[in-house]
Amino acid sequence: MEFSYSIRPATPEDADNVVEMIEELAMFEKMLDQCKLTPQQFKEDGFGPEPYFHCLIAEVTLATGEVKVAGYALFYYIYSTFKGKNVYLEDLYVREPYRKHGIGGDLMKTVAQAAIEKGCVQYRFACVGWNTPALNFYKSNGARDLTAIEDWHMIRLEKDKMHSFAAKLGKK
Amino acid sequence: MEFSYSIRPATPEDADNVVEMIEELAMFEKMLDQCKLTPQQFKEDGFGPEPYFHCLIAEVTLATGEVKVAGYALFYYIYSTFKGKNVYLEDLYVREPYRKHGIGGDLMKTVAQAAIEKGCVQYRFACVGWNTPALNFYKSNGARDLTAIEDWHMIRLEKDKMHSFAAKLGKK
Repeated sequence: MEFSYSIRPATPEDADNVVEMIEELAMFEKMLDQCKLTPQQFKEDGFGPEPYFHCLIAEVTLATGEVKVAGYALFYYIYSTFKGKNVYLEDLYVREPYRKHGIGGDLMKTVAQAAIEKGCVQYRFACVGWNTPALNFYKSNGARDLTAIEDWHMIRLEKDKMHSFAAKLGKK
Repeated sequence: MEFSYSIRPATPEDADNVVEMIEELAMFEKMLDQCKLTPQQFKEDGFGPEPYFHCLIAEVTLATGEVKVAGYALFYYIYSTFKGKNVYLEDLYVREPYRKHGIGGDLMKTVAQAAIEKGCVQYRFACVGWNTPALNFYKSNGARDLTAIEDWHMIRLEKDKMHSFAAKLGKK
């Protein structure tokens, strides 16, 4: 397929398209049942007075002139108490027909550029260990696998456990 | 040692104390050379118009009436595209003389309470795999080790690599 592509910030009007891609990503990860986000929530959380994330959209223009949404990157700013401002890439997704043309890499690099402008000094994200092509791509660009090198584990409390944990404040 | 303790939000006046504790934590992790944060940067990044983090302070009152800073928790709000708002605990530290009295757990639970009020539905953090007592504490409270269960790896690009990566935008 012949096409050109460009990357732009998402707007609230992209909500339906992004949520559709989030569901595609969830399906790919066999986690669709865990995916609860609605376009309305996406708009409120990303474009309200206190945005919880930033989102980039990759768009392709086909030879016919038709424009299609091809992928997205969702990220936010976090903090390292050793180094200062960091950026975290939460999601990266490119739709199947548009893969292997550098769109995913360029989405990641555009996030890096935005983060550098913001004063960020580290770029963090997560990857499943079986995704060898992705891990190799990251390593070839100088990324360090902190789980492999320093044995860091990602831990999560789900909603119900978080509530029961919070309720134990002041109790051993 | 006999003491009582309480937890309160940090203020800019805590900058010296918190940075001192960050350095103690870095020393414990044998990473002091990586620790570059200054009290001035802590104030700017945490208490400016766009705060990059929130911080809680644990204070103990000794039998003598003396008040000491005993620990801190540093956290920020992040986002899950499956579930919505999340909280991330970046640092948790209790000074040696005040450990094993439940201060660390209560700092973590206070973060959970703040996050629930904010509408967060998941609580995330990281732990080194060799820290078995901590991992057991988290698991006994219902936390899931996503690295062990789903093989998630934490990846990071340091400043120089992030800049060279960003500079490759548009190039394969």
